[in-house]
Amino acid sequence: MENIGIDTIWVLIAAALVMLMQAGFSLVEIGLTRAKNSINILMKNFVDFSAGSIIFWFFGFSLMFGEDVAGFIGFGDFMSDSNAIDGIPFKASLIFQTVFAATAATIVSGAIAERTKFSAYLIFSIIITAFIYPISGHWIWGGGWLSEMGFHDFAGSTVVHSVGAWVALAGAIVVGPRIGKYSSTGKSRVIPGHNLAFGALGVFILWFGWFGFNAGSQLAASGEDNAIAISHIFVTTNLSAVAGAMAAMIISWIRYKKPALSITMNGALAGLVGITAGCDIVSPGSALIIGAVAGTFLVLAVEFIDQKLKIDDPVGAVAVHGISGALGTIMVGLFATEGGLFYGGGTALLTTQIIGVVAVFLWAFIMGFLLFKLIKITVGVRVSSSEEQKGLDITEHGEEIYN
Amino acid sequence: MENIGIDTIWVLIAAALVMLMQAGFSLVEIGLTRAKNSINILMKNFVDFSAGSIIFWFFGFSLMFGEDVAGFIGFGDFMSDSNAIDGIPFKASLIFQTVFAATAATIVSGAIAERTKFSAYLIFSIIITAFIYPISGHWIWGGGWLSEMGFHDFAGSTVVHSVGAWVALAGAIVVGPRIGKYSSTGKSRVIPGHNLAFGALGVFILWFGWFGFNAGSQLAASGEDNAIAISHIFVTTNLSAVAGAMAAMIISWIRYKKPALSITMNGALAGLVGITAGCDIVSPGSALIIGAVAGTFLVLAVEFIDQKLKIDDPVGAVAVHGISGALGTIMVGLFATEGGLFYGGGTALLTTQIIGVVAVFLWAFIMGFLLFKLIKITVGVRVSSSEEQKGLDITEHGEEIYN
Amino acid sequence: MENIGIDTIWVLIAAALVMLMQAGFSLVEIGLTRAKNSINILMKNFVDFSAGSIIFWFFGFSLMFGEDVAGFIGFGDFMSDSNAIDGIPFKASLIFQTVFAATAATIVSGAIAERTKFSAYLIFSIIITAFIYPISGHWIWGGGWLSEMGFHDFAGSTVVHSVGAWVALAGAIVVGPRIGKYSSTGKSRVIPGHNLAFGALGVFILWFGWFGFNAGSQLAASGEDNAIAISHIFVTTNLSAVAGAMAAMIISWIRYKKPALSITMNGALAGLVGITAGCDIVSPGSALIIGAVAGTFLVLAVEFIDQKLKIDDPVGAVAVHGISGALGTIMVGLFATEGGLFYGGGTALLTTQIIGVVAVFLWAFIMGFLLFKLIKITVGVRVSSSEEQKGLDITEHGEEIYN
Repeated sequence: MENIGIDTIWVLIAAALVMLMQAGFSLVEIGLTRAKNSINILMKNFVDFSAGSIIFWFFGFSLMFGEDVAGFIGFGDFMSDSNAIDGIPFKASLIFQTVFAATAATIVSGAIAERTKFSAYLIFSIIITAFIYPISGHWIWGGGWLSEMGFHDFAGSTVVHSVGAWVALAGAIVVGPRIGKYSSTGKSRVIPGHNLAFGALGVFILWFGWFGFNAGSQLAASGEDNAIAISHIFVTTNLSAVAGAMAAMIISWIRYKKPALSITMNGALAGLVGITAGCDIVSPGSALIIGAVAGTFLVLAVEFIDQKLKIDDPVGAVAVHGISGALGTIMVGLFATEGGLFYGGGTALLTTQIIGVVAVFLWAFIMGFLLFKLIKITVGVRVSSSEEQKGLDITEHGEEIYN
Repeated sequence: MENIGIDTIWVLIAAALVMLMQAGFSLVEIGLTRAKNSINILMKNFVDFSAGSIIFWFFGFSLMFGEDVAGFIGFGDFMSDSNAIDGIPFKASLIFQTVFAATAATIVSGAIAERTKFSAYLIFSIIITAFIYPISGHWIWGGGWLSEMGFHDFAGSTVVHSVGAWVALAGAIVVGPRIGKYSSTGKSRVIPGHNLAFGALGVFILWFGWFGFNAGSQLAASGEDNAIAISHIFVTTNLSAVAGAMAAMIISWIRYKKPALSITMNGALAGLVGITAGCDIVSPGSALIIGAVAGTFLVLAVEFIDQKLKIDDPVGAVAVHGISGALGTIMVGLFATEGGLFYGGGTALLTTQIIGVVAVFLWAFIMGFLLFKLIKITVGVRVSSSEEQKGLDITEHGEEIYN
Repeated sequence: MENIGIDTIWVLIAAALVMLMQAGFSLVEIGLTRAKNSINILMKNFVDFSAGSIIFWFFGFSLMFGEDVAGFIGFGDFMSDSNAIDGIPFKASLIFQTVFAATAATIVSGAIAERTKFSAYLIFSIIITAFIYPISGHWIWGGGWLSEMGFHDFAGSTVVHSVGAWVALAGAIVVGPRIGKYSSTGKSRVIPGHNLAFGALGVFILWFGWFGFNAGSQLAASGEDNAIAISHIFVTTNLSAVAGAMAAMIISWIRYKKPALSITMNGALAGLVGITAGCDIVSPGSALIIGAVAGTFLVLAVEFIDQKLKIDDPVGAVAVHGISGALGTIMVGLFATEGGLFYGGGTALLTTQIIGVVAVFLWAFIMGFLLFKLIKITVGVRVSSSEEQKGLDITEHGEEIYN
């Protein structure tokens, strides 16, 4: 049986692609912020991936996929060197899940960019990978209570993206807006990113990596069924991304009179986040709709968070990963070819999807909020205003990005 | 039979690599042009890939690969959600062919950069992916008249690259040169690109993606024959690329006294385009020659198009993709180990190759010319001279690439 | 038997990933040096890969893997077009080994950056790929005397990285430091890199490619044993990289009061180089230790080479690839689960590892030294001081990186 070889290389290549998404996130984040804080962002991305990989091997993986305890958490087999095989080798699962965990952590860094203390971020980053992400992850992918209910999140619209985004939302609230972001009358000011070429390159790299993220989540490639499944996922993933980009562009064109790159880029990401939950069980046509909805709401959500809620999220991470992730997860309840409302499946799946989205929001947001508050009270969460004005690169790291 | 698993992951990984080539094209194009038009170029690349992916699923794929109608066009199975298997799942073919179609479209954007209206590009981009590319593609890959004649273009020197380039040539003629490109006496001025680091990174990414482009076109990897074939293609593809780079460097060193990066980079691309038609049936030594010929002619063609024809192609797309594509396709008639003139195959294949190259040139150039003329007459094809001087980023998109 | 399909695509995809590492090296090198020499660095990378690919096919591969002659060198089958199969097709091995050879060559370019003549580099680059690399490579991977002794270097900590670094060390000594690098009293001055964003992106790309570098070296993926092995390698490779990054960050934080990105980045690379020799036979926990040791010594080695030895290595290539490679290779003698000192294997393997490291150092350093001396005496190795001050981009290539 050569299935194991095929399935293993599929998952490993996917893991490498997802690892490369760290470069994509880094580029998007530095591209959409100011040059004076770019070193800081890059350091955060190196550190959340590095610390996260260690922590997740130490015990994050075990809490997520270990033996189920009361539907809430997993347990056992910490720091494993197992060569066991369950379809694929244990270590193929380990590395694949590790790069997923690091993705959730890294989503936060953009939303709290340009004013957060590096040491605070380091602590936060360890906690999210060690506890927040694995626990809600266990509910859905580790055999916990949401999986028991039939909640469907194939590759992590909610498990990965929303969790990161809801923690990011809590972080952005606790840390507060950047100096100068809101005028004394509360009017939001645009602080343009310093290098949209990096931003666009980052989006292309993320898009490329997303094929691994979504189709790798099949965890197998051998046999007709798997071959059809992963091919289907490539098609739906891509169609949703392009629909997200086009929808965001069109909406921005209508609302702001010109088609803006920064919005189109984020629209593609919104489409990618949105399709991640249902990429396996929605049709190509539904993928187009899901992407278009995600891309449309992206524009509105960025505006709403920025101008109405007055929460300063420099890269739009909450909108891209949180709102799109929630919408995409809920739309599974509408478009799933088995169980979706529009396919005659009634409201059962839809209800479950909504319950899952709400539960994960409460978990991640509350835990994130408490965590950031705790860090704020203890080591402090924000640099001084003079440090913020000079830029975190010089004050926190003693380096500048360009010389 | 595990063939389907192996073959499918091979094609899907190749599709992901070809998708990443969009990042490569974007970087080469913004790198070789001025900063003030970079947002516009990136938007064009996002939009041609996005609109193209949708259109190609709607009906481009069907016109190219559907049931043959008179050797000219395919028909049937539009917006398919088929799970049929023909060696690999239908959707694996669909995504692979979609990213190829988008490659053809994106080649055009460089040649008409820095002065073309975004709305005009959007229209154009839809038409090329919907009709121009699929129809000549059908002739060669879809069972049409050229394939009946035995025309050999394994991975698309002509089907993809030349088609894009001939349309680009038509576009560059209709749109006209950038302001200041030619002096009042007709002398060509150099308008240097603003970031050759982006350009070089783009070339490396394209080179990486090209392994997917060429070896993925085998559409299978299982069994000894396929394994040998894809290994062979890796070797010939790489040898032609390096020969193209070295040849272009040497020629530029001799002609301009210094070895120039911009020329060496384009030489590598010329080698890659040149080998694409025959990567499966020429020897490694022939691949070296094909690459060297492509790299040499690249330098001469860029100069000829720029200084003699006075056609302004800011990134050299016509030379890289058109001339190299035509040369590479014709050289299959010389170097093919079965049927090539130098291997005792006589002139039959060579003649067919020339016929195909000419036919596709006529088709793509004439259709492109009519299309751009039509757009010119209706919505207009070019921004105003004040917009061009300010830069398209601000005037068309309201954003700047660097802040 | 479908093993050949699986094994072949594994090796080919790995080859593509290793090829992409050229982009990573290029970005790290230009990022850590000054803008005025970036074109030169990019040209060196294009040329060492291009010339190297040709030379290695001409005869480098044969000298490394041809029939063994006295344990010292291989011979036979030059410029091969063989379709033979030995597990995988010959040409899959050829392309995989070609991109490895080019990696060794390209390591040198960073250490002698910003003052070396392009023509001198071109000559050097051909010689290393033609002779220096294949001969010591033959000792270890081609059935030569070190492989007979049981020397273990799975993916090339010594074969590839150290060889490149020891030649680089010789080059940096012969070429001498950049103007202004050391004050008249011998004090080392920091010459900051011009774009750490490129540097960081380069590291992420290298990291991504390293999964191909290390796990591809298994040369097979079919069957349980191979599937377990490549999964294991992914885990150890990643854990060592992250430990290297964290260790270097912490050491830099302690020594220089701030966590520096440039050091953290190089720490990740040190971890990657360090684990390359033993990624197949050390446990995940040992990988963490190996990475942490490599990351720690990286900081100390960079300082020692720069400030005590007063050898000017602009990008830290000798420390990253040489010191980490040697340490990693020796640590195999401690941590190998079969034969390692800490696993009850006694000192036999450790002794062999040390012998191999020393032998390869002597070979590569002496050959590199003689070669650079010879080039210095003949065509000259260094640009004039006025050229160096103007920058090599304008004086050697007639182009500037940014316009």
